[in-house]
Amino acid sequence: MLVNIQSYAYSHDEGRITVASPTDQSQRYQRGWQRLIEVDAEAGERVLESLKDVAPDLGRYVVEFAYGEIYQRPVLDLRQRQLVTISALTTLGGAEPQLEVHINAGLNVGLTAPEVVEAILHCIPYTGFPRVLNAIFVAKRVFEERAVDPLTDQG
Amino acid sequence: MLVNIQSYAYSHDEGRITVASPTDQSQRYQRGWQRLIEVDAEAGERVLESLKDVAPDLGRYVVEFAYGEIYQRPVLDLRQRQLVTISALTTLGGAEPQLEVHINAGLNVGLTAPEVVEAILHCIPYTGFPRVLNAIFVAKRVFEERAVDPLTDQG
Amino acid sequence: MLVNIQSYAYSHDEGRITVASPTDQSQRYQRGWQRLIEVDAEAGERVLESLKDVAPDLGRYVVEFAYGEIYQRPVLDLRQRQLVTISALTTLGGAEPQLEVHINAGLNVGLTAPEVVEAILHCIPYTGFPRVLNAIFVAKRVFEERAVDPLTDQG
Amino acid sequence: MLVNIQSYAYSHDEGRITVASPTDQSQRYQRGWQRLIEVDAEAGERVLESLKDVAPDLGRYVVEFAYGEIYQRPVLDLRQRQLVTISALTTLGGAEPQLEVHINAGLNVGLTAPEVVEAILHCIPYTGFPRVLNAIFVAKRVFEERAVDPLTDQG
Amino acid sequence: MLVNIQSYAYSHDEGRITVASPTDQSQRYQRGWQRLIEVDAEAGERVLESLKDVAPDLGRYVVEFAYGEIYQRPVLDLRQRQLVTISALTTLGGAEPQLEVHINAGLNVGLTAPEVVEAILHCIPYTGFPRVLNAIFVAKRVFEERAVDPLTDQG
Amino acid sequence: MLVNIQSYAYSHDEGRITVASPTDQSQRYQRGWQRLIEVDAEAGERVLESLKDVAPDLGRYVVEFAYGEIYQRPVLDLRQRQLVTISALTTLGGAEPQLEVHINAGLNVGLTAPEVVEAILHCIPYTGFPRVLNAIFVAKRVFEERAVDPLTDQG
Repeated sequence: MLVNIQSYAYSHDEGRITVASPTDQSQRYQRGWQRLIEVDAEAGERVLESLKDVAPDLGRYVVEFAYGEIYQRPVLDLRQRQLVTISALTTLGGAEPQLEVHINAGLNVGLTAPEVVEAILHCIPYTGFPRVLNAIFVAKRVFEERAVDPLTDQG
Repeated sequence: MLVNIQSYAYSHDEGRITVASPTDQSQRYQRGWQRLIEVDAEAGERVLESLKDVAPDLGRYVVEFAYGEIYQRPVLDLRQRQLVTISALTTLGGAEPQLEVHINAGLNVGLTAPEVVEAILHCIPYTGFPRVLNAIFVAKRVFEERAVDPLTDQG
Repeated sequence: MLVNIQSYAYSHDEGRITVASPTDQSQRYQRGWQRLIEVDAEAGERVLESLKDVAPDLGRYVVEFAYGEIYQRPVLDLRQRQLVTISALTTLGGAEPQLEVHINAGLNVGLTAPEVVEAILHCIPYTGFPRVLNAIFVAKRVFEERAVDPLTDQG
Repeated sequence: MLVNIQSYAYSHDEGRITVASPTDQSQRYQRGWQRLIEVDAEAGERVLESLKDVAPDLGRYVVEFAYGEIYQRPVLDLRQRQLVTISALTTLGGAEPQLEVHINAGLNVGLTAPEVVEAILHCIPYTGFPRVLNAIFVAKRVFEERAVDPLTDQG
Repeated sequence: MLVNIQSYAYSHDEGRITVASPTDQSQRYQRGWQRLIEVDAEAGERVLESLKDVAPDLGRYVVEFAYGEIYQRPVLDLRQRQLVTISALTTLGGAEPQLEVHINAGLNVGLTAPEVVEAILHCIPYTGFPRVLNAIFVAKRVFEERAVDPLTDQG
Repeated sequence: MLVNIQSYAYSHDEGRITVASPTDQSQRYQRGWQRLIEVDAEAGERVLESLKDVAPDLGRYVVEFAYGEIYQRPVLDLRQRQLVTISALTTLGGAEPQLEVHINAGLNVGLTAPEVVEAILHCIPYTGFPRVLNAIFVAKRVFEERAVDPLTDQG
């Protein structure tokens, strides 16, 4: 995986548009990348790969800022942070690809499938049924891919 | 407080538009009301009071559905539910009055001020700075009213 | 259809997470289910079926709260309620599956295709062209499936 | 009122930025203005007045396009159009000033206060409680200003 | 192309619902149509074609109001207007089809691919990563269709 | 002003929650702060000041990420970036305080008042009249405070 980090960092360094000094970047980038692969390595690689020919800096900001800064913060643990993320993405709407990533991430860091379902259902009074239905159908697909049963899963 | 419950239930029964049978209503309504006063009694009373001359059933639905159904559900505890709520309301935008209620509610059920702040800051990558700034300024006002210091509070 | 109601109610009773007493549930659930099949039986069954392995309570809330409470209310008739629903879903955005259900529902309760189109076009000044274009293309698909011509249909 | 139309049209003609020919404009503008004063003369004048020093063409587009085109359309009557408008503005959120105008407009064209309340409450399942609460409090203020009681008003 | 304008205008004249006088319409419509084909002829035709059997007036309003009024305005040139449009559609969310049209339009009027990417990335602090990721993936598809490399393109 | 930077950096260093190394922070922070004071010094100071007792890291992220990264990027100049920002905030809705900051910022970096107005009006077809009206009234207030006339101002 170290190899992958290097190659991504390299492909980003090749980008036409670079403002961070190599040293500055590599610290925050590597810290973010470590957190990202802890949370969802496969989706992380896939997103960075898909961005590298169009907007590599967008991938860099996701790694450096979202994972290198926000996901490094104390006070809330990773499971609480995924509850907050799932609620934000459910409410935002139109963010089904990101919701899929973060439902997987939630399960990866220890949320149970029923906890994911509960976080989504809890949004009903605040964001209404359509956003919640869309989010639940994303969760259903993730659960099927991982062969998890949200009605019996105990984590 | 029991007296208040009764009087509210009564004023709702007087409403022109009633579909639930008294028995059905009183069970779910009282279950919801108990949860609501556990979470934020003062705001609950204030909202129901302000609705009773314009749309008392809206108050009834908040009590019966949001608090009598959703907030009764298992799997997530009340602190986790307030993290999810704060994230949803921050992301929704334009919901500052409701955010004020639920930041208070979060503190009432045991979230610390730093946990409230973290839940809001965690939304930056998903909903951007403007929504997060608006939410933080609501939190600031709540903390000042309660004389809580979010930089030193340990819960 | 009675058989289906029973089987759905049964599968929900099997659910791990149940808060309503059977009597309470069956009254509101059956009242809601009657309204739901009056409005759009096929979509109702399909949505409940798709939820039953992931979040059966979400289907129950749709039936009990949306159809057992809100759609039972007086003052506005079912056609007016579908105009309001179509406007809300057009404006919300990202709710194309729900919009498809409710455009069908609108036609089922007596709205003409031109009335559906007008409700969507009326949203242009409030929500802009993109949301309205997306909604019109959903309507177009529904009209084609039902072989209705919105330019000549008289209801 | 005719005098006012003339003076507004005049002040718009003075605007630095004008693309419509006088004849084209005056037809659609006057048609729109007639509809606007039919719906809510006072708010219409107030909005146009407040725009005339900053963006008079915005006022012109509201008159020409919203009222001169959309509100001229057949199939739905003015009361149905205000139901659709109230739903759109409730769902949009952050549009309280416009909601105030259109709740007044709804009452002006013959909606009863209970119909306005019902249109807003009907949005709960689609847009959640916060948007609906905000809209109901706008309605409450309008009802108070007009001394209308939404619990007893029969239109 | 003149032929197409005529045939579209004709099919619209056949529409059941017509409020503009032929003269009024043809002036603004033709002015708008000229601007539309200057900006994105292919998408313009495709959208109007797809609307003509369901809501031809929606296509007419896009041509007359969006392109015949707004896009005729002075002060900002077409490239600046496409920057503003791309930002609005990125932020709105759920408007991927319209974003595809306007990224093409931006390139057609002289924006470079890197300028399109920058306009989208600039929205990160205001609307968050999910909306920006969705928009960038639309841009990626457009760039691929046009065989443009956003990392080396100089316009 | 240097003195102010130092004191803010200092108060942030005192924050309980710090992840960036001092060197890393001071580079990006100072780079961002220079850009921020170039764009809108007064609002920048006011926002950071108001955050320092509740969430100083939020102010730090605004400086480091928004101004230290995004606003440092090439390809679009500061005036183009403010056009994009004004469009994003108009469309987002409920971001009036941030819109006020960025309309001021736009004027500070060389946009004329008519250009600000045009950027807002250009959003009408995409986001509808209510968001545009709200944004124009913010612009009107800013123009009045700065004694700028948007109908005659030539920059």
